[in-house]
Amino acid sequence: MSDSYLSFVNSSWGRRLAQTIGLPQPLPLQRHRSGQQGLANPVIIAGAGRLADEVRRIFKATDTVPAQAATLKAPSTVKVQGAVFDASAVVDLKQLDELYEFFHANARRLGQHARVVVLGTAPEHCQDLPQAIAQRALEGLVRSLAKELRRAITVQLIYVAPGAEQDLESSLRFFLSRRSAYVSGQVVRLEKSVDGAPSIDWGKPFSGRRALVTGASRGIGLAIAQVLARDGAQVVCVDVPQALSSLEQAASSVGGHAWALDITAADAVQQLQAYVAEHGAFDVVVHNAGITRDKTIAKMTEAAWRSVLAVNLQAPLQLSDALLQGQGLNAGGRIVCVSSISGIAGNLGQSNYATSKAGVIGLVQGLAPVAAARQVTVNAVAPGFIETQMTAKIPLMIREAGRRMNSLSQGGQPIDVAETIAWLAHPASGGVNGQVVRVCGQSLLGA
Amino acid sequence: MSDSYLSFVNSSWGRRLAQTIGLPQPLPLQRHRSGQQGLANPVIIAGAGRLADEVRRIFKATDTVPAQAATLKAPSTVKVQGAVFDASAVVDLKQLDELYEFFHANARRLGQHARVVVLGTAPEHCQDLPQAIAQRALEGLVRSLAKELRRAITVQLIYVAPGAEQDLESSLRFFLSRRSAYVSGQVVRLEKSVDGAPSIDWGKPFSGRRALVTGASRGIGLAIAQVLARDGAQVVCVDVPQALSSLEQAASSVGGHAWALDITAADAVQQLQAYVAEHGAFDVVVHNAGITRDKTIAKMTEAAWRSVLAVNLQAPLQLSDALLQGQGLNAGGRIVCVSSISGIAGNLGQSNYATSKAGVIGLVQGLAPVAAARQVTVNAVAPGFIETQMTAKIPLMIREAGRRMNSLSQGGQPIDVAETIAWLAHPASGGVNGQVVRVCGQSLLGA
Repeated sequence: MSDSYLSFVNSSWGRRLAQTIGLPQPLPLQRHRSGQQGLANPVIIAGAGRLADEVRRIFKATDTVPAQAATLKAPSTVKVQGAVFDASAVVDLKQLDELYEFFHANARRLGQHARVVVLGTAPEHCQDLPQAIAQRALEGLVRSLAKELRRAITVQLIYVAPGAEQDLESSLRFFLSRRSAYVSGQVVRLEKSVDGAPSIDWGKPFSGRRALVTGASRGIGLAIAQVLARDGAQVVCVDVPQALSSLEQAASSVGGHAWALDITAADAVQQLQAYVAEHGAFDVVVHNAGITRDKTIAKMTEAAWRSVLAVNLQAPLQLSDALLQGQGLNAGGRIVCVSSISGIAGNLGQSNYATSKAGVIGLVQGLAPVAAARQVTVNAVAPGFIETQMTAKIPLMIREAGRRMNSLSQGGQPIDVAETIAWLAHPASGGVNGQVVRVCGQSLLGA
Repeated sequence: MSDSYLSFVNSSWGRRLAQTIGLPQPLPLQRHRSGQQGLANPVIIAGAGRLADEVRRIFKATDTVPAQAATLKAPSTVKVQGAVFDASAVVDLKQLDELYEFFHANARRLGQHARVVVLGTAPEHCQDLPQAIAQRALEGLVRSLAKELRRAITVQLIYVAPGAEQDLESSLRFFLSRRSAYVSGQVVRLEKSVDGAPSIDWGKPFSGRRALVTGASRGIGLAIAQVLARDGAQVVCVDVPQALSSLEQAASSVGGHAWALDITAADAVQQLQAYVAEHGAFDVVVHNAGITRDKTIAKMTEAAWRSVLAVNLQAPLQLSDALLQGQGLNAGGRIVCVSSISGIAGNLGQSNYATSKAGVIGLVQGLAPVAAARQVTVNAVAPGFIETQMTAKIPLMIREAGRRMNSLSQGGQPIDVAETIAWLAHPASGGVNGQVVRVCGQSLLGA
């Protein structure tokens, strides 16, 4: 789970050696710590669409200093920690020049670890074809900038639907903070919130909320439980009965409850309903439990095929269905699933896993409108290469390739996935629904 | 433009050396030649949805022998050249087991260069959530098989909308033939044809049809002109006035007409309208002309930004608009654009190019419904690494990486792009609209 190359190239002689012979030089990512100032600071605000006012209001609310927008052709030499470009008013190709001018002038002003967010209007919400094309073109710009800015800088595109301007804050806070350190090159669509505008304690957003996390005894699941608990949630940690002792340890470490449940058991749904009847409904459910049984299709046993689909896809479907049909999720509830880059791109030797994780995308997209009617959202993260006990078992050279094949030239940590899930599960993220967000440092791999 | 490694590992001692030290061993692709039998043969037909009858009818029409579907658990040892699995009737996760059983039993029966097509029902056309999830999950299966079957085998997923069963033939013929040698891991959606069912001469489908190809004097554009002419079209070859002599040579080589036109000229639309008024309307328009001006954004000149957007995006938009508004395209017309993997994934040093090519995707998706109302389709190809004069200039090691980072471990040829365009432009492809199909050997790169 340690990336010795990353430490090496950031030691003083390692850095010199790497520079001399031209090795990649990833920066260690800066991650969020409790008590830190939340947002990148200072930040340049540019562009003049329907979102610029709301962006300024958010900065004011967070005491973040907006840097003066640079005169476009004469960049200031003062470094900034972030940039927000409101491109929502771009209506044709000609106006895309404004983004060129801005990034051309300001790319070098962005400090290490800077956060860049472009705001737009999704093509499906545009008035006419030239606007839809210009807005769709932003994807190519954002993904290219995410690949070329380097120095641990991240770049995202958020399409904000008309009418969803007031639902931007949780997403902007996430993407402009260190919480999103391993998320880059992503395109997210925001719609009007499914559940109105709750009043938020930004320091402890999950205060008074109950969360269920499956596969919580270790690795990414444990990190999810920790982050939700850190941010105020009461967490119910679920894992299989065989993992009971590490599960109890995990639950106790986050001040939560341990619940030994095999989510693939024939009576898992009934057990969940009974649990809810006894302890009350949940606000957040994270379907994190997942298994791999890798083999090429010709060598794969039927058991390997079925068990992977049962744990990774059938169980999240059945449990989500039961929670939504019954009274298992409060209004304002959040379901977060875990897909995978393999589910997006397919993977050699993982036809079972990729099938299950592609199905998770289908689950999220199909369930989102149904859930919205109950004031619940359903989203997924799709992790790339994350440093866990699972990836530590990958042979060295393949592991090295997996680690470096992304714009940040390193693997992510479980906490990167957990922070992204906490954003999707956030009480103020009711405008984020049906989305699949990669946590992969903008892995080269895709479809 | 020659891939010396591919020749080397397919020489007798090169093959032995590669086996000994474990180098990748790409097979040279087999491409279509005039007079060849069109479809892979024999082919296994499996699955039992609403498409199986139509698939059998197509095989009968093409004199292709369907191999007896293998008894699932006792695979025959007879090699087959293709497989079609009709999964359109899969309604839940349980039924996905049928695909596991089929591919588990038959993966090794597939000969080198075999063509595999899975047919499904797009999630948005499904009756309920379990069906939508199972159908969406097929993407993960197909993309994984495309990565692991190797031996120049290709695998695709075609979602056929209910009611579009009769519009499958041109797509099935393409994906089961050598014409699609460099297309793999793709997901295509078929809807009911925008223009009814014309009677087709499958040997010369473009007979009596007029095609316009921009950037036709060399490379991919020339290959497009050649393939359309081979298949019966009268081709008008367009390129900039500076390329006049090679343009005239290209046009004459395909028995077509040369037309020197700068598609970014202020009066390009008027020139096109005048040309149509004099010579008549087109049936096929291929927006192939494109340029690159690579630099990172901080070093990119405004001219480099603007010229790339003008040629690659503004011109296709203006000309398509003029053709559709005026009488420039006959009913049954086809517009085919050229996007790029860079437009999907972004690319370092190509923010201008990626923006333009992402915009092309917006153009295709936005224009498709408008065009459909006029019985015209709009689609795009997105080439990956294609062996051209442009890619021959890439430094050796980067070129090698680009060539090998796909499931076929080699670059494509201009003809691979051209054959794919000919399928999209085919008179019987009226059910393919608004699609972006990668021609990349299933490049690892994506978003």
